[in-house]
Amino acid sequence: MTRADFQRLIDDKTKPIGSLGRFESLAVQAAAILGDMTPSNASASLTIFAADHGIAAQRVSAFPQEVTGQMVANFLAGGAAANVIAAQFDIPMTVVDCGIAHPPRRRDALVDLSLGGGTADSSTGPAMSPETARKAIAQGRQFASGIESKIVCFGEMGIANTSAAALLAHKLSGISVAELVGRGTGLDDTALSHKQEVLEHAAARTGALAPIEALAEVGGFEIGTMAGAMVGAGTSNKLVVVDGFIATAAAALARAIEPDCERTFVYAHRSAEHGHRTLLDWLEAEPLLDLDMRLGEGTGALLAVPIIHAALSLFGMASFSQAGVSGAPPIS
Amino acid sequence: MTRADFQRLIDDKTKPIGSLGRFESLAVQAAAILGDMTPSNASASLTIFAADHGIAAQRVSAFPQEVTGQMVANFLAGGAAANVIAAQFDIPMTVVDCGIAHPPRRRDALVDLSLGGGTADSSTGPAMSPETARKAIAQGRQFASGIESKIVCFGEMGIANTSAAALLAHKLSGISVAELVGRGTGLDDTALSHKQEVLEHAAARTGALAPIEALAEVGGFEIGTMAGAMVGAGTSNKLVVVDGFIATAAAALARAIEPDCERTFVYAHRSAEHGHRTLLDWLEAEPLLDLDMRLGEGTGALLAVPIIHAALSLFGMASFSQAGVSGAPPIS
Repeated sequence: MTRADFQRLIDDKTKPIGSLGRFESLAVQAAAILGDMTPSNASASLTIFAADHGIAAQRVSAFPQEVTGQMVANFLAGGAAANVIAAQFDIPMTVVDCGIAHPPRRRDALVDLSLGGGTADSSTGPAMSPETARKAIAQGRQFASGIESKIVCFGEMGIANTSAAALLAHKLSGISVAELVGRGTGLDDTALSHKQEVLEHAAARTGALAPIEALAEVGGFEIGTMAGAMVGAGTSNKLVVVDGFIATAAAALARAIEPDCERTFVYAHRSAEHGHRTLLDWLEAEPLLDLDMRLGEGTGALLAVPIIHAALSLFGMASFSQAGVSGAPPIS
Repeated sequence: MTRADFQRLIDDKTKPIGSLGRFESLAVQAAAILGDMTPSNASASLTIFAADHGIAAQRVSAFPQEVTGQMVANFLAGGAAANVIAAQFDIPMTVVDCGIAHPPRRRDALVDLSLGGGTADSSTGPAMSPETARKAIAQGRQFASGIESKIVCFGEMGIANTSAAALLAHKLSGISVAELVGRGTGLDDTALSHKQEVLEHAAARTGALAPIEALAEVGGFEIGTMAGAMVGAGTSNKLVVVDGFIATAAAALARAIEPDCERTFVYAHRSAEHGHRTLLDWLEAEPLLDLDMRLGEGTGALLAVPIIHAALSLFGMASFSQAGVSGAPPIS
C-alpha cells in the first residue's frame, strides 16, 4: 500500500477530514514506511552513540571531557534521563562507543565501534581522516542492519558535540556559524562568545566540502556513526526518530549521503539549542514536540514514540459508514 | 513536599540544570500536585462531556446536529479517535450526556447529567437560565468527586460548540469575537464569515457578564459541566489535562470561578482552531504539543498522558554524586 492508500483510509475515519493535522500525517508516514498499521508491531529501540571531541580542549563546553565516559557509565547503570524515560516506555536501550576518550572500566555492555580516543581538535586540523569518516558511516550502516525494532530512536553523548554539530551543519547547509552556535549544556555569555570565535576559526580552515570531507574535517565519530545508522535504517524502511540538534546534524549528513532515506525520518522535537530551529527550517522539518529540551541522549526521540504508536492506532477507528455517522453536507 | 522541594530533587539529577526545559517543569508541577513522584501511581482517565447547542440552527457548523448523538454512539462502540488513542494508552473512558438533542438509543453506558435536549439558540436569547448554569457547574464538581484517577483528561463533543466556546471566551476575556471565531470542523470562507456574523450578533445581545451569567447566556451544557469538573478535580489535587479550544474555554471559566484550581492545569496542545492561540496567550498557558489537531474529544489531552508519566519518571534518575559524574566547573 502506498502513502495515498493509507491517507484514503484515514480520510474515511469518523472525524472531519484533516482534523488531526500533523498527527494524522504522522500516522500515514509511519504506516507507509513500516508497511503495517498495527501499533503493537511497531517495536521501538534507543541507541546512544557516544564519542569525544578534540575541540573540547578549546573550552567550548561547560563540562570537562571526562563527563562523556562518566555519563556512559551512568547509561549502563540506568541512572540517566534517557534510561528512566526508556524504561517508562519499555524501550530497550543500547550504548555504542564510537570513540570515547575515557571509557568506563566495565565495557562489556557497550557496543564497541570505537574509532579512537576522541577526534583531533578541528580548530587546528582535521578531526579525522577521510578514511575514518567513511569507516564511521560504514560502521553505522552495519550497526543499523542488526537492529530488530521497527522504530529506531537515535541519541548521542559527547562533550563538545554541539560544536562539531554546528560546524558540520554549517559545512552542509552554508548557514553561518553564528546562527548555529549555541550554549550547549549551559555556557554563559562570555563562554558562548569564546565558543563562537573558536568555531568561526575552525570553519575558516576549510572552504566548501563534500559531505564525507565535512565529517572528516569537523567530526565527530558519534555523529558520523549515527548518520550511517540513519542511512542504513532508513533504506531498510525503519522509522528513524531524530532527536535534537546533534542528531539533526547527523540527519542532514545522512540526507546528503542518501537523499531517499529522509522520507523515513520523524523529527521528534525542537530543542532549546540555538541553531536547531534554523537547521530544522533549512531541512523543512517540522518536529512533533517543542519543550525547550536540550539534553540529547535521545530523550526527545523517546517522547515521540507513544505519539507514533497512538498515530498508528487511528487506523483502528470506525469509518463513517461503519459508525452510522452523518458526513458534512455542503453548507452554503 | 513543596514545588521547590521537587525542583531541588530535579536540579540534582545527572543532567545540566534546566536542560529538560518545560518537560522538567511538568515533572515538578505533576509531583507537587499529586504529592507523589511515582509514574505508576499517576493513573489517568478520559471523560468526554457531550451536549447540543441551539445556535446550530444558525448553520454555524459544517455538520448537522444529529452528529453529536451519532458520535456519542461511536464513542460507546469504541470507534472514535478518542477511543483508539485511549485504548492504546490503557486509559479508561467515560462519556457524560450533559444535554444531547438526539441521544443514542442504548444509553446505559452513558453517565446521565442531561440538562435538556440542547441549549436554546444564544443568538436570539439566553442559552440557558442562570439556575441551569449553576446546576451544570455543580453537577460537574459532583461528577469530579467520583473520579478515582489522579490524571484527568477532559474532552467534549457537541456540534456548534466552537461557537459557544468562542462566545464564552469573548465574554470572559474581552478578546474580540473576530479573534476567537474559527472554522470548527471545517467551514469554508463563506460559511466562516456567516458564523462570525451570527456570533457578533449573539455577543452584542449582552454587555459585560459575570462568569456564571456568561455561561447562561452563551452555553453550553457540556462546557459548564466540564468547567465544574475542572474546579472539582483541581481543588482536590488531581492533575487536569486541558484539551483544545473548547476545553480551554471551560478552563477559563473554571479559573474565573475558582482561581486556585489553575495550578493543577496542564494545557495539552495548541489546536488549529483559530482563536485557541489567542485564548492560550491570554491565559499565559504554554501547551505541550502543537500538532495542528482540531478534533476535540480529548484527543490532544490523551497524547499528553505518556509525556506526563515520562516526566515523573525523571525523579528516578541518579544524582551527580550517586553516578560519580563531574559537575559543570566555572568556565571563564
